[in-house]
Amino acid sequence: MNLLLDQEIAISNPQSTEELVEQYKRIRERTEVLAKPLATEDYMIQAMTNASPTKWHLAHVSWFFEAFILKDFEDKYKPVNELYNYLFNSYYQDVGIPFPRAHRGDVSRPTVKEVYDFRNYINDYMISLLDSKPTNDSIKILTILGGNHEQQHQELIMTDIKYNLGINPMFPKYTDIDAASPRSPDIPEMEFVKFDGGLTEIGYTGEGFAFDNEMPVRKVYLNTYKIGNRLVTNAEYLGFIESDAYSNSKYWLSEGWDKIRNENWTAPLHWHNISGEWYSYTLGGLQKLNLSEPVTHVSYYEADAFAKWSGKRLPTEEEWENTVKILDLQPETGNFIESNHLHPTATSFEEIEEHKIVQLYGDVWEWSASAYLPYPGFSVLAEGISEYNGKFMSSQFVLRGGSCVTPIDHIRRTYRNFWHPDTRFQFSGIRLAK
Amino acid sequence: MNLLLDQEIAISNPQSTEELVEQYKRIRERTEVLAKPLATEDYMIQAMTNASPTKWHLAHVSWFFEAFILKDFEDKYKPVNELYNYLFNSYYQDVGIPFPRAHRGDVSRPTVKEVYDFRNYINDYMISLLDSKPTNDSIKILTILGGNHEQQHQELIMTDIKYNLGINPMFPKYTDIDAASPRSPDIPEMEFVKFDGGLTEIGYTGEGFAFDNEMPVRKVYLNTYKIGNRLVTNAEYLGFIESDAYSNSKYWLSEGWDKIRNENWTAPLHWHNISGEWYSYTLGGLQKLNLSEPVTHVSYYEADAFAKWSGKRLPTEEEWENTVKILDLQPETGNFIESNHLHPTATSFEEIEEHKIVQLYGDVWEWSASAYLPYPGFSVLAEGISEYNGKFMSSQFVLRGGSCVTPIDHIRRTYRNFWHPDTRFQFSGIRLAK
Amino acid sequence: MNLLLDQEIAISNPQSTEELVEQYKRIRERTEVLAKPLATEDYMIQAMTNASPTKWHLAHVSWFFEAFILKDFEDKYKPVNELYNYLFNSYYQDVGIPFPRAHRGDVSRPTVKEVYDFRNYINDYMISLLDSKPTNDSIKILTILGGNHEQQHQELIMTDIKYNLGINPMFPKYTDIDAASPRSPDIPEMEFVKFDGGLTEIGYTGEGFAFDNEMPVRKVYLNTYKIGNRLVTNAEYLGFIESDAYSNSKYWLSEGWDKIRNENWTAPLHWHNISGEWYSYTLGGLQKLNLSEPVTHVSYYEADAFAKWSGKRLPTEEEWENTVKILDLQPETGNFIESNHLHPTATSFEEIEEHKIVQLYGDVWEWSASAYLPYPGFSVLAEGISEYNGKFMSSQFVLRGGSCVTPIDHIRRTYRNFWHPDTRFQFSGIRLAK
Amino acid sequence: MNLLLDQEIAISNPQSTEELVEQYKRIRERTEVLAKPLATEDYMIQAMTNASPTKWHLAHVSWFFEAFILKDFEDKYKPVNELYNYLFNSYYQDVGIPFPRAHRGDVSRPTVKEVYDFRNYINDYMISLLDSKPTNDSIKILTILGGNHEQQHQELIMTDIKYNLGINPMFPKYTDIDAASPRSPDIPEMEFVKFDGGLTEIGYTGEGFAFDNEMPVRKVYLNTYKIGNRLVTNAEYLGFIESDAYSNSKYWLSEGWDKIRNENWTAPLHWHNISGEWYSYTLGGLQKLNLSEPVTHVSYYEADAFAKWSGKRLPTEEEWENTVKILDLQPETGNFIESNHLHPTATSFEEIEEHKIVQLYGDVWEWSASAYLPYPGFSVLAEGISEYNGKFMSSQFVLRGGSCVTPIDHIRRTYRNFWHPDTRFQFSGIRLAK
Repeated sequence: MNLLLDQEIAISNPQSTEELVEQYKRIRERTEVLAKPLATEDYMIQAMTNASPTKWHLAHVSWFFEAFILKDFEDKYKPVNELYNYLFNSYYQDVGIPFPRAHRGDVSRPTVKEVYDFRNYINDYMISLLDSKPTNDSIKILTILGGNHEQQHQELIMTDIKYNLGINPMFPKYTDIDAASPRSPDIPEMEFVKFDGGLTEIGYTGEGFAFDNEMPVRKVYLNTYKIGNRLVTNAEYLGFIESDAYSNSKYWLSEGWDKIRNENWTAPLHWHNISGEWYSYTLGGLQKLNLSEPVTHVSYYEADAFAKWSGKRLPTEEEWENTVKILDLQPETGNFIESNHLHPTATSFEEIEEHKIVQLYGDVWEWSASAYLPYPGFSVLAEGISEYNGKFMSSQFVLRGGSCVTPIDHIRRTYRNFWHPDTRFQFSGIRLAK
Repeated sequence: MNLLLDQEIAISNPQSTEELVEQYKRIRERTEVLAKPLATEDYMIQAMTNASPTKWHLAHVSWFFEAFILKDFEDKYKPVNELYNYLFNSYYQDVGIPFPRAHRGDVSRPTVKEVYDFRNYINDYMISLLDSKPTNDSIKILTILGGNHEQQHQELIMTDIKYNLGINPMFPKYTDIDAASPRSPDIPEMEFVKFDGGLTEIGYTGEGFAFDNEMPVRKVYLNTYKIGNRLVTNAEYLGFIESDAYSNSKYWLSEGWDKIRNENWTAPLHWHNISGEWYSYTLGGLQKLNLSEPVTHVSYYEADAFAKWSGKRLPTEEEWENTVKILDLQPETGNFIESNHLHPTATSFEEIEEHKIVQLYGDVWEWSASAYLPYPGFSVLAEGISEYNGKFMSSQFVLRGGSCVTPIDHIRRTYRNFWHPDTRFQFSGIRLAK
Repeated sequence: MNLLLDQEIAISNPQSTEELVEQYKRIRERTEVLAKPLATEDYMIQAMTNASPTKWHLAHVSWFFEAFILKDFEDKYKPVNELYNYLFNSYYQDVGIPFPRAHRGDVSRPTVKEVYDFRNYINDYMISLLDSKPTNDSIKILTILGGNHEQQHQELIMTDIKYNLGINPMFPKYTDIDAASPRSPDIPEMEFVKFDGGLTEIGYTGEGFAFDNEMPVRKVYLNTYKIGNRLVTNAEYLGFIESDAYSNSKYWLSEGWDKIRNENWTAPLHWHNISGEWYSYTLGGLQKLNLSEPVTHVSYYEADAFAKWSGKRLPTEEEWENTVKILDLQPETGNFIESNHLHPTATSFEEIEEHKIVQLYGDVWEWSASAYLPYPGFSVLAEGISEYNGKFMSSQFVLRGGSCVTPIDHIRRTYRNFWHPDTRFQFSGIRLAK
Repeated sequence: MNLLLDQEIAISNPQSTEELVEQYKRIRERTEVLAKPLATEDYMIQAMTNASPTKWHLAHVSWFFEAFILKDFEDKYKPVNELYNYLFNSYYQDVGIPFPRAHRGDVSRPTVKEVYDFRNYINDYMISLLDSKPTNDSIKILTILGGNHEQQHQELIMTDIKYNLGINPMFPKYTDIDAASPRSPDIPEMEFVKFDGGLTEIGYTGEGFAFDNEMPVRKVYLNTYKIGNRLVTNAEYLGFIESDAYSNSKYWLSEGWDKIRNENWTAPLHWHNISGEWYSYTLGGLQKLNLSEPVTHVSYYEADAFAKWSGKRLPTEEEWENTVKILDLQPETGNFIESNHLHPTATSFEEIEEHKIVQLYGDVWEWSASAYLPYPGFSVLAEGISEYNGKFMSSQFVLRGGSCVTPIDHIRRTYRNFWHPDTRFQFSGIRLAK
């Protein structure tokens, strides 16, 4: 695999201006490394409304610095083009009506080259601003936020391009990737590890950056629970499919049942049955389904139905967070984008023996049974970007732990990802509880 | 008002067969009393998919006894018409594919008269079955469930007919109703009552009937909270409208903002601005807006936006339930269907003085900030009707307390109603917390 | 069959006020006779936007006299209810924005009884007006138009109620009807009769009433053509179905192919294959398919595809009209509503021997290959009802000859009916040409 | 303007193999010249289903030679990629199910470069085939058809790219174009030229290539008619707009009225009112509206409404063809793509004096009042491409005369273009008749 990503961890809580500038540069650079394998044509496509073109992502994350920092704090700043504020705003109503999301792929100009020019233009201003106003805390906080925002879009670049290339009947690969996993079907039976209930604390308390939706810390009471010691595999999910579960309403939430019938879902996204053989489309192209790998690209509906079919349930986000806290697990154990797999990988007997519970970090985002709602006492981000997280707090579910395309320094035990329950184009998977 | 409803409370946990039969008869009779003011034509209409025709409700609640009791426990039972199982199934996939919901209003036969015949037919069989098998607990439990189910549809008959008549530009009244409230604008300022946090127990523990979604009882930790001592009024909501809040994205959830723009919502459902004057359509016809009454027919999006505009928030369902528990309030204080108002009514200084917090029961269902999800350890109803509640546990919010068209003996402190956040045709309103 | 329709022909070109009043009364009465078999519930239903409720038809045709005659010519006239002008306007934008067509079935008030009262109210005013102003030609012309308009709706009442009852899985009958045809499979092979080409005249020249779209008379040049001596039968259409033509794109217009796939059409509307046996829903209920009867309830797409499959084509409207003119055929030979069959009937050897070409009048409207466009020199109806015909002159095809539910005195050789090519709920059928 | 197009006319009826090869080469080359001004990104976009990406056009016209010639007549031919037959089939059901039209813009591979390689690959095979089988008439006929087909797509490349770039708020230009017209508002008043009626012949009789839909020749009888001596101008159309005609239902066909309200049409496509000033987007970018130019980008509905507003009507296709025949006009007088304007241009006093009636050829396609239907005796193209024209013969109207982006050697007096009446992205305009 030819992405030159490194394992070195960015400084998520930079102490000095130098550290902040360095962090800013490395995040910005990383985004461009991710786009590098693409042909110009690939930058343009948007095969569904939710899967934005790479070109748009590259521009939007730059616009973020323009709209929330440079316009307010840099008097000399002059926009490259006034229309970029319309074209590259995602959903911030306060900043003006955004260009219709469904048409992002219909905009050929600015060209890819011009978007890279725009990135450089922003970089020059940002670095100069950070250098010239080293004591301005608002700038610092917003720059860190902008970096975290760009990391979120790094993940989206990968999931969106996977979707956008994946609908092409030629199944072009994004790049050559490492054989995602050894073809070992020998992975241990799932076991359930018991955790005592009681009062515990959930949410972010550290000193570095965290999103508003992880705060404030809150006390919760948990019942005793048991949680699966690894993710659900393709082999196990295939059992669900082969039991005809997609035709049996009793496993499904009502909305899920409507969805699978209206969309003719009979397997996870990116699975293809070719002449009776299962394949999955990966960022390295179409590959025979690896039964030992964690299942991915399933909706909440499918995760929940699988759990019911198994006689189990999905864990709540509080159970997930408590588990990681008690085991004191660190992200370093996980398969993140720096691993260069770009696909979830199988676990092993050894790994389970070492960590007791594996794959909590990385590989796939784990659907929790918790709706995405504010923590008691939640207040939105200040500094004019109040629309960041809070306005999505209806009809979505929380996912935890990061995936194989998440930057490792972006994840935390308290990190809350959220998607509608019908979402499948993310690297989303299943952990069971009972 | 000419509905002969009585305040006497049905026996919600009948001890003897006689009591059970009596309860069955009274619930069945009540349904027919509610339909009585309607013209034959009114029974037929379905102005949106969600607002089923009264005729369909009358038949569906009867079908429930056929499908889940008589078919299984009464050998002699012969369906009036085999197609009723298709026409009057609502959503129970196990029992067969239901007739398309959107076309319920397009079915003229069976006629209203034939549906009443069907009701009598079911009643005869049910009463005879209850008499002949007095010791069969399954029959008993399912009959109680069928009664509770029919009470839910009594409320729906009222909300659906209100919607269905309300789209008629002639604004026909369902019946003459008592002047909903005295026209007193003199109601006290809202005050917030403080409750200490800590561990508390939520959920049903009693011996009588409760739905599966209220169980099992669970321990939760609450932060200290303050809750409004009365419901939000039309006057207060008008302030929200007049501040141009429907045009200001900052108060709105993202889905809510899309909804109000796509549907051109600028006021609650059933409000009409005629030559600059506000009116609301009630079951007694079009009336000048009474500013002292609790606002109703608002979606979760509107309730949430109103709360944000006020600098407050909506209470969680745990806070609501804890409040009622600590105050030891009983439903008898509330404005339910037996009050014969069929509309929320204004509170008064005296009432607040007496009860400290008013309108928790009755008047309007109060949107909570809690998603509708299972309690830890939740298991679905046995007895073949597992599809009753559990399959709706995604994308919905919990409402508490009952409304002016809820039967008083149907409500409980632990009762959880649930609707999609865009729902407005129910009597839904707003209580604030902070 | 219990409809008391008579064969006596109304005076289509009344000479005296007495004749006009008599004609008015008889048309108005006939409409009510047609509605008589219906239950109150049947009056209400609208199972698709195009199939209006009978109650609406009854009111709309009355509103026509109010809007275009009484309001303008009768000073004393006071509307029963100002909102009727909104509720019962069909599409006359000049008269005000009409109530949304798709919601006609959602309006329970006025009740059926009140609509009949409205009819009587209009009748009283109309008859008094005709008596009091016998010399006003505008009133006379508009009254004749109103009568013809009501006759069009008589046909629609029948086709709409057939559609609306036909979607009910119980297949209720409108009424008992005469066995539509003897079950004789012995009908003669189709033969083609040759007509010489040359110049001919098309369009209305008589003295009585005709619609604006039949005028002015125009000269056309026809090539020599051959036309089928009878309609296409169910047996022949079944051959088309059984040859798998619904799965073979080569017979279909592009729009037709999209339609049959999107709507899963595999047979004419109202056909049902029950356990391998074909039935058709008729106004007398579900009946075994009679193979000798003319096929009906086919779209233009199906008529055209059938013709292509047969190696033939559909006749143009000029060919159809010229054929009738040369044969000098009169409507009296046809199966119209007065025959009380309410269904197309089979022809016979005798009939063909007698008339050479049969079924040109009545039974089913025959799809022509002609788009519905104005004749050269066309000008719209004067008198404020210019929206009557002209504004539909795009995307529709002409049908000729009337059907088994057309009033016999409503049809003419020059009469042009028109529908979108995907229409199937009319009694539409197929005649071939080559 | 930098397109190196030449006025020299291709040999539309090549006599020798050399001529045929030369014609083939020049048409193929011309297509690539048209694409040359585009950035790679521009090749990809499809802002509505009907406006295919340039890349797709380039591939599709090549696929046509593969599918209908090389596969059948060249044994050695091996497809570059089997999937191209799926990706680049437009609508030929016989050849396999085409890739969904709406997703053409979502396919980034093959890249633009690979599509040009595909073009060359096809060219090599085609030229070698033509050389090696000089006497095969089927190959000859199909090659000529393929050339004409490619010319049709040359026009579509221009109209589609105009649409696709035109939705970009930056209004990128396709290329620099000649000032479309001198800014002379001084053009003569429209006059109407009278033509006697009588029998005339319509349709193609020549020896060269013509489409199946222009044949067979047919005799028609025309009434005396008068036809406008020039096209309707922007100034005249502005009068229509300013008279509030878009808000006045009486000018509109019913379908047109629905369309303009649903889509909020208030002016032709590509018109923009910026601060009270009218601009139109041209292939040379946004320009102030030139009042003397012919109005273009109007639908049939708008053309018809304009005619009604003017007290005139649109000419029939027979009147148009007869006019050109009698005046014996040749395409050379017209503004076609070889003029390098890429936009309709204003006429002048001199031009009208010279030709009596101007702009019949070129500038804009003229909406006729005729539905697109087969001529009597029409039979589809043989040789397996029967789906070419015939299957679109419903719901469309005929346009005549070619436009400023039509290749001059592609047009004829008998040429019939056809589009749905709501189409606006073509260069369509208005000529009046009475």
